Amino acid sequence: MVYSSMMKLPERVYRYARETLAHLVSFPTVSAEGRAIPETAQAVVKLLEDLGLKAEIHPTPGAPVVYAEGGGNGPTLMFYNHYDVQPADPLELWESDPFTLTERDGHWYARGISDDKGELVSRMAALKWFMEEHGSLPFRVKFVVEGEEEIGSPHLEAYVREHKDRLKADAVVWEFGSVDTAGRPLVYCGLKGIVAVELRVKTAAYDLHSSNGAVVQNPIYRLAAALTTLRDNDGNVLIEGFYDKVRPLSETERKSLEAIPDESEQIAQVYGVKEFLGKAKGFEFYRRMAAVPVVNFNGFHAGYGGPGSKTVLPAEAFAKLDFRLVPDQDPVEVVELLRAHLHKHGFTDVEVITLEVGEHPARSDLEAPWVKQAVEALREVYDREPVVHLSSGGSGPMYPFTHYLSAPVVAIGISYPGSRVHSPNENIRIADFERGVAAIKRAMEKFAALP
Amino acid sequence: MVYSSMMKLPERVYRYARETLAHLVSFPTVSAEGRAIPETAQAVVKLLEDLGLKAEIHPTPGAPVVYAEGGGNGPTLMFYNHYDVQPADPLELWESDPFTLTERDGHWYARGISDDKGELVSRMAALKWFMEEHGSLPFRVKFVVEGEEEIGSPHLEAYVREHKDRLKADAVVWEFGSVDTAGRPLVYCGLKGIVAVELRVKTAAYDLHSSNGAVVQNPIYRLAAALTTLRDNDGNVLIEGFYDKVRPLSETERKSLEAIPDESEQIAQVYGVKEFLGKAKGFEFYRRMAAVPVVNFNGFHAGYGGPGSKTVLPAEAFAKLDFRLVPDQDPVEVVELLRAHLHKHGFTDVEVITLEVGEHPARSDLEAPWVKQAVEALREVYDREPVVHLSSGGSGPMYPFTHYLSAPVVAIGISYPGSRVHSPNENIRIADFERGVAAIKRAMEKFAALP
Repeated sequence: MVYSSMMKLPERVYRYARETLAHLVSFPTVSAEGRAIPETAQAVVKLLEDLGLKAEIHPTPGAPVVYAEGGGNGPTLMFYNHYDVQPADPLELWESDPFTLTERDGHWYARGISDDKGELVSRMAALKWFMEEHGSLPFRVKFVVEGEEEIGSPHLEAYVREHKDRLKADAVVWEFGSVDTAGRPLVYCGLKGIVAVELRVKTAAYDLHSSNGAVVQNPIYRLAAALTTLRDNDGNVLIEGFYDKVRPLSETERKSLEAIPDESEQIAQVYGVKEFLGKAKGFEFYRRMAAVPVVNFNGFHAGYGGPGSKTVLPAEAFAKLDFRLVPDQDPVEVVELLRAHLHKHGFTDVEVITLEVGEHPARSDLEAPWVKQAVEALREVYDREPVVHLSSGGSGPMYPFTHYLSAPVVAIGISYPGSRVHSPNENIRIADFERGVAAIKRAMEKFAALP
Repeated sequence: MVYSSMMKLPERVYRYARETLAHLVSFPTVSAEGRAIPETAQAVVKLLEDLGLKAEIHPTPGAPVVYAEGGGNGPTLMFYNHYDVQPADPLELWESDPFTLTERDGHWYARGISDDKGELVSRMAALKWFMEEHGSLPFRVKFVVEGEEEIGSPHLEAYVREHKDRLKADAVVWEFGSVDTAGRPLVYCGLKGIVAVELRVKTAAYDLHSSNGAVVQNPIYRLAAALTTLRDNDGNVLIEGFYDKVRPLSETERKSLEAIPDESEQIAQVYGVKEFLGKAKGFEFYRRMAAVPVVNFNGFHAGYGGPGSKTVLPAEAFAKLDFRLVPDQDPVEVVELLRAHLHKHGFTDVEVITLEVGEHPARSDLEAPWVKQAVEALREVYDREPVVHLSSGGSGPMYPFTHYLSAPVVAIGISYPGSRVHSPNENIRIADFERGVAAIKRAMEKFAALP
């Protein structure tokens, strides 16, 4: 089989995928607005049943999880996806209706066409193709399709923990994947954890005339001074104990970072950045993105911000922060370390408010057979060397899968850097979709030890 | 003459003052909106002419100055006032029309009733009263009434400099004055200088996803770090050379600060402040307000400020600052010191934008006869010990008068702490107005060496 020359799906599979996609994106499943949740969940149940799986709606305190399984009794391959999408606004920036699948110039456009209905359908299409070609499923397949990913998956960890016996799996395909700008297929094997906090300082009952700055403390000073103690100019975090639980890189992990083609200079140009923190490039650039925890300042607001000047001494200041974490840091512990740090440095006037429960970091074992199988599948289908990333710099609910199920997870899929996920005119290139479906099918064959 | 028992103005003077006030506040002289400037200037000319003075309109590149003089050829007493007012909005918070003089419960309400049309009319009424009682003016009187005080007096310094021979004066009455909460008359003999700047940092071409915080510099960190180098936790300014030109306090100045009744605890309660910078109270509190230069952070804005969290790495941050200066600091020099400081500390990425030309600090000689005469006049009229303040913590265009005219300036007048200047329901207490007119008339008598 020469997968590398395979540019087109079999007609039947292509038609199935297109029709299924058109159907799914027609639901405006905006979880932030609670729209079309039960209808979409039912539609997903029906689609999975049509593939011969046993599908169920599993309630959670929020949107239900669609769970399905089927196939043989061998090892288990799990697909994690979500049926909810981001809001479509600003609507006026869409060139076609966000909830109507639209084809233009070899692209498909719709809200969710990449994230994540397109990815979900690519798994279904690959499964359909596999079964049609091989007659049956020699391994067990499980789907966990949640409806709250776009609002932070607040109930997914509890769901996986409570159903961990039923969800038992040997390998997981994550909900997203893409090629890079050079067309190389990417494999992400982990996600950073995250915890978001707000810091607040109040120094007076109300805003004062700035002549009082001679005697009254300034909240901007206090908050700026507090933030400045949290990191140094190169981005190293100065919170006592922050790095204590960071797991050292294995030799394999280090080598994977070294093997990543260095695109840091091009990225710097796109971002309009003269140099990266600590002059990072190559290995160090990718090490920081994948394996170094950081503190981010997302916002800082206090006092006057209009044109010209205003002689005001504001009474309050606040900042929004997120911490990006790596194994084996813990989101709750990190907030405790932050509180202890501020206290120790005299910032007892700085209030710390946790904004989100947070997500644990997750990382798959790069030497797990499933990681190697996925990489081999991509290499064959794309006829290029895949780029293996130890971890994305971003975050997501991967931890319940690596932790409670102890399953290696790979993120591979159908998107590209121009997919505009979360933005108007979300799109995928049809050729990427076809190649992605082929890669997933080929990975299944590797998983099933088929030639 | 027992001034201390004088609670009422002579009927004629009272009627004159009330009618003149009603006329002047009927002009909506909002300089920020360029409203009613020529009409008000003409009305002021007419009022000064009615007092027997020679009045002229002196053009400037902005609103004209109304200049008037008259009386004898002895020493010269100058009144500095302004005929413009702050905007009246939010209009819905006014209990009566802002441009109609309204009397309620012993108060007069109108925009400008304190700041500064009320103060201006109090000088006119005192002059009328003086001339009616003494038959003529044994000294020379000059009025400088500008129309741009509420927008920062951008042309006043040049005006005074260019006309310094004609404006020659031996003493100046400043445009405002008040009693304190305990009813003690206040005398301010100086104003702090001011210069306002904006600091800006840009670290990328556009906002990025916060996962990039692992490699991309954060503008909030850079700006917070820069601000933190400018002062310490007690408010001491750390800019090299910042204090070099600060004139040491004379023994008289020091004693004047020691003599101020300590209201710092009450002020702390009103402001909702646990303690002041450096635990200042009493002498130290008033020293800081009057004689210590400071840097104020008026605003800081960057990135996300809405509810919850947003995983954004902002590209830009900015802060607004004002410096409050004391003799003999120079606003332009201070900005140069700031630039040099930032450069020396590696903040070459922090852009410094001067927002206003700035005002020099000004301070009168506390031992000048005019200061003593004003204090004596207040003591007699109020039958209480006046509180002499070396300087207000606030700023204003006093420097041209102390510098080009070398004249001592005292700020005395008709307002009280509840006057709500610049706010809806601006008002004065009629009893304060009457007492203030009497005090100005009595100060004229002292100036004229009358018994």
